[in-house]
Amino acid sequence: MAEEGELLPQPAAEEIELVRVLHALADPARLWLFRLYAQDGELGCSPEAVRLGHLHKSTVSHHFKVLREAGLTSTRAVGRERRVRLRREELDRRFPGLVDALLTATDGGRPPLP
Amino acid sequence: MAEEGELLPQPAAEEIELVRVLHALADPARLWLFRLYAQDGELGCSPEAVRLGHLHKSTVSHHFKVLREAGLTSTRAVGRERRVRLRREELDRRFPGLVDALLTATDGGRPPLP
Repeated sequence: MAEEGELLPQPAAEEIELVRVLHALADPARLWLFRLYAQDGELGCSPEAVRLGHLHKSTVSHHFKVLREAGLTSTRAVGRERRVRLRREELDRRFPGLVDALLTATDGGRPPLP
Repeated sequence: MAEEGELLPQPAAEEIELVRVLHALADPARLWLFRLYAQDGELGCSPEAVRLGHLHKSTVSHHFKVLREAGLTSTRAVGRERRVRLRREELDRRFPGLVDALLTATDGGRPPLP
């Protein structure tokens, strides 16, 4: 099904590299975003929408770029809006059990601090 | 059972942090070492013993330090020798399914470079 808007550049599923995924998640704010998108599906990406209002907008943008370029998330540009979602099915196919284990590991974890 | 030698400093099991574990593994050589110790149990840690003879000894030592300080490995000093092993049981208790998922994800992966 065609989706609205334009997809920002991202690696193809088979090009997602584990080392880059681990690097992308080796940061409390990005681990928080990973968890948030896993739970909530597609969201906007303003600092407020992702409950990172204490961080600068450019810092949050950088985190989204790292997640997208590692292959963890997809970002669609719809007009001036950005809609982000976790590439859950592709990640599950490429790295079976990894997303679930990471979500379990962060369950009840501390809130996101920069 | 008391083991030979002296344990180098390492975090207690309950202090192992996911972000540090992910950071430690977000490097091809350290991901290789993680895999090697998961398969082979206790090994020495010379570059040759861990099949990283193409890297400088100090680089390999640094990798071991990062892994140990993140809580992934234990190092015992027995005389001048260092014996390293993965803290598999503690990791499995702390982050259920994570070690298995990472091993699956690296299965058939590329050899360790650099």
